[in-house]
Amino acid sequence: MNLARKRGFLWSSFEIYSGSAGFFDYGPLGATLKNKVMNKWRDYYVVREGFYEIESPTIMPEEALKASGHVDHFNDAMTQCKDCLDVYRADHVIKEATGKEVEGLENQELTEILSAEHIGCPKCGGHLTHVWSYNLMFQTLIGAKGKKTGYMRPETAQGIFIPFKRLLRFFRGKLPFGVVQLGKAYRNEISPRQGMIRLREFTQAEAEIFVDPQDKSHPHFSRVAEELLTLYPASCQEGEEEPIQVTARAAVDDNIVASELLTYQLCLARRFLMELGLSEEVLRFRQHMSTEMAHYAIDCWDVEVYTDRYGWIEVIGIADRTDFDLKSHSEYSKEDLQVFLEYPEPQSVKKLALKANMGKFGPLFKGDAPKILRALEEIDADTIKQSFEEDGVFQLELEGTVNQITDDLIDFQVVEETVRGEKIYPHVIEPSYGIDRIVYSVLLHSYTQEEDRTYFKLPAEVAPVEVNIFPLVNREELVSVALQILDDLRKEGIIAEKDTSGTIGRRYARSDEIGVPFAVTVDHQSLEDDTVTIRERDSQEQVRIDVDDLPETLQLLLCGKKGFKEFKTGK
Amino acid sequence: MNLARKRGFLWSSFEIYSGSAGFFDYGPLGATLKNKVMNKWRDYYVVREGFYEIESPTIMPEEALKASGHVDHFNDAMTQCKDCLDVYRADHVIKEATGKEVEGLENQELTEILSAEHIGCPKCGGHLTHVWSYNLMFQTLIGAKGKKTGYMRPETAQGIFIPFKRLLRFFRGKLPFGVVQLGKAYRNEISPRQGMIRLREFTQAEAEIFVDPQDKSHPHFSRVAEELLTLYPASCQEGEEEPIQVTARAAVDDNIVASELLTYQLCLARRFLMELGLSEEVLRFRQHMSTEMAHYAIDCWDVEVYTDRYGWIEVIGIADRTDFDLKSHSEYSKEDLQVFLEYPEPQSVKKLALKANMGKFGPLFKGDAPKILRALEEIDADTIKQSFEEDGVFQLELEGTVNQITDDLIDFQVVEETVRGEKIYPHVIEPSYGIDRIVYSVLLHSYTQEEDRTYFKLPAEVAPVEVNIFPLVNREELVSVALQILDDLRKEGIIAEKDTSGTIGRRYARSDEIGVPFAVTVDHQSLEDDTVTIRERDSQEQVRIDVDDLPETLQLLLCGKKGFKEFKTGK
Repeated sequence: MNLARKRGFLWSSFEIYSGSAGFFDYGPLGATLKNKVMNKWRDYYVVREGFYEIESPTIMPEEALKASGHVDHFNDAMTQCKDCLDVYRADHVIKEATGKEVEGLENQELTEILSAEHIGCPKCGGHLTHVWSYNLMFQTLIGAKGKKTGYMRPETAQGIFIPFKRLLRFFRGKLPFGVVQLGKAYRNEISPRQGMIRLREFTQAEAEIFVDPQDKSHPHFSRVAEELLTLYPASCQEGEEEPIQVTARAAVDDNIVASELLTYQLCLARRFLMELGLSEEVLRFRQHMSTEMAHYAIDCWDVEVYTDRYGWIEVIGIADRTDFDLKSHSEYSKEDLQVFLEYPEPQSVKKLALKANMGKFGPLFKGDAPKILRALEEIDADTIKQSFEEDGVFQLELEGTVNQITDDLIDFQVVEETVRGEKIYPHVIEPSYGIDRIVYSVLLHSYTQEEDRTYFKLPAEVAPVEVNIFPLVNREELVSVALQILDDLRKEGIIAEKDTSGTIGRRYARSDEIGVPFAVTVDHQSLEDDTVTIRERDSQEQVRIDVDDLPETLQLLLCGKKGFKEFKTGK
Repeated sequence: MNLARKRGFLWSSFEIYSGSAGFFDYGPLGATLKNKVMNKWRDYYVVREGFYEIESPTIMPEEALKASGHVDHFNDAMTQCKDCLDVYRADHVIKEATGKEVEGLENQELTEILSAEHIGCPKCGGHLTHVWSYNLMFQTLIGAKGKKTGYMRPETAQGIFIPFKRLLRFFRGKLPFGVVQLGKAYRNEISPRQGMIRLREFTQAEAEIFVDPQDKSHPHFSRVAEELLTLYPASCQEGEEEPIQVTARAAVDDNIVASELLTYQLCLARRFLMELGLSEEVLRFRQHMSTEMAHYAIDCWDVEVYTDRYGWIEVIGIADRTDFDLKSHSEYSKEDLQVFLEYPEPQSVKKLALKANMGKFGPLFKGDAPKILRALEEIDADTIKQSFEEDGVFQLELEGTVNQITDDLIDFQVVEETVRGEKIYPHVIEPSYGIDRIVYSVLLHSYTQEEDRTYFKLPAEVAPVEVNIFPLVNREELVSVALQILDDLRKEGIIAEKDTSGTIGRRYARSDEIGVPFAVTVDHQSLEDDTVTIRERDSQEQVRIDVDDLPETLQLLLCGKKGFKEFKTGK
């Protein structure tokens, strides 16, 4: 992290104003690295999976977050030192003092533990107050007149549920479909002390995949079925056993993971992280214990990455949220957020229908007869029949008048009706990626120390500078060729930089250090035969090629379509 | 806008909770269009200009925004109806009632105009209150203990000035360099009534280019010198004349625009917008009048796009902000945000130096002599000399003791010193792009009505869906080939979609409507000879090609490296 700070990947925000805990800047190298991780995510979810991205505001009105439960339940249990007045998350203080995991306990229970275990302030040893709930949303006011309470959104997902009706129309009313959102989310942490791991403002990439609750198979499951996953199911955690390795297919067949849809997402997450340079050994999938899982969820897995400093950290959460969100928003907004699910074949349903005995009905109600009949037809025939059986009469109130419908006015008959489908709330499969933690993990695990150099072994795909151009010596003829190459590469969309100062060895070292995958050197021979050398960061090997072939060669190397070795021998 | 809403480009946010003025969702087509516009911007500024992107938090602590002037000056003049209690921007009410532009006037003056012109509430005609200042930032509180006031940032630029020292180190202390930021900014508008034009949450793309105040030439100015710009200088606006057309070169030579650096930015902005499909006729550059320009700015131009509904709207602002921001942050933070500017050649400077007459100095001060001499050498020799001339003595206070330095103890001599450079505050050239307004303009001006169809003629580069695949009829053999093509294109990073429902004509129409530039049709012949047709949206022409050539052909067409016609005849 020290090198990442010094070289311009990441640093604490607002340093000249003595900083602000829980906020980080992405520097000139970090921001592009992050963008590339996000674009890779889009390539996975938008381009390849065919989901659609939307973007909703980060400020949300209170009603919407009432519906989602965040106004009432997005809380941390908090305690304060009576002496030094510092504040803490109660569960953190307890874990630090006793090693106990107490997530999910009630405030009263936490207060009791603090007292029973004689836990004092971690800083000054003072007495801690009783535990209370602290809402983690940043609050603000919208507008100038009759100001409305708003909050910075706690997750991007809600922005997808709210316009569900419009989305459903976009997908022409058909399930399944997936919608994603990438963007900022906020959490006013009580006292963030873990650098990049616990931020008050962070970036999420979430997909909400709306599916038929009766069908959680995945059409392309066979593509991932043989992949080996390191799973840490709740049962293993309870029994204090080790994680297990099973194929995706076995995870589904043995009911370790709840569905093909969820397992497919685990496999995507694994591929995504491995392509970012994380190895199998530092990855695992941990199932939520029953105590930590949301009450509405069917199954939930955290994708965890191992870090020296913080142990296993969650970087992705993958959950089956059932119909919880859509149902809540339906209830609060009074909008129908259901989907009409067509049956594969229309079904025939037997149903009681009523038929007026018009010989009596007409003369009795005269001009009102048609209106009264229509009103009766809209009522469930079984209700009317029951009323006849019990009272011999059904009282129909219509426009303020009560009409006595006696059983001699109506006949019943059983009819067959064709039903095309039914209205249901879709279930939601949600992979939720924490982009900042992923960037942190990538930097951490790409940090490489070799005998004579220290560098970030970033995959070419996400390296913030893609090519460095070096004139061998700082002479005008060489520099002008280098500048021309720089310009040509940039026109082709390659992120290229030049460096003319210091020995060539020093420049290679500096270039490696920030993870530039390729360096191009212009030397004296370049002036004679229009060739240059390309040096690969990882192998430190070089190859000489024609200047004219440079843009295309680099493009192939950068997107991984051609490996450096293959390319070297092929030449 | 109606079609844009219906087809899933844009819609008002939080509709099911009766909406929230000033907030918009980008729907499944809008978000990708917007991302593509932003990526194009990155291609211009990050890849080609070689600037570096950073990302700073959207929540900022109060100190930083005190320094920038936003806490005290980011206000709108507001008035309220005493009867219906609705609130208004005073300048808007006056402009509506009288046509007068009153931006920049003091509250007192605005109050007087309201009263003198007998302007009432635009809604109910009631009396309006006096005018007061209303701060436009969304306020919040950071942290749980000793909560600190924070604001949602009013612009992305400040996030670049604050870590200037770190940035300067990244660029190894050398000017010029450019740093960009793309992201959300916020403005709690009093009463936003102009849809996408006045948002409370919007996206900016800003570049801050730090330059030597003495050198505002641009090394690549010749590349743009002959471009023709439609300029509307302040003098023309005052004289109520028409805008003028001049080359970039003439704009600089005739001092219409303040510098090459600014003019170069005007040219970039023009190219950027034209490549997005906006034509010359709907673009102009309007210079700020002296009344609207910030007091510290040297020159400021708005890039404006014509719209039927709102007239000319600003989509980009390009300003020379001088050293205002860095100086302010230096003063408030007490950090030195200056740059050491090396002279092209070290300069020789004549300077008065003092020399102790050690024969007297030593015996007088004994052991303290070296310490006193060092203290004297740190004082400007001219000051001491002047003191001798006036009083014959200089009083040196050192560690609580006052030492009488008489003029016989010191000799003066003129020495030559070599100075490598000086410390200066760089000036800042700032192009600031309003991404939402640009997206709006692109949709507006790409909307095309032809005899038999209505569609968004989006440039292929920014089309949210790039290719639509159609099996000619919904038969399994054709559908399975279409699905295979879909999969292959997606693997190559092409945003492809399929559509199997309705007649082929209906599908072409639907595809055109949302601006998909190319459609691929799989027909019976495809099953026989592995060919498909590609249809171009704009010309509606078709060409048949081998399935195997499809990904590469489409990639060339999409990035504009090969035109459809050229390709057709070439085949």
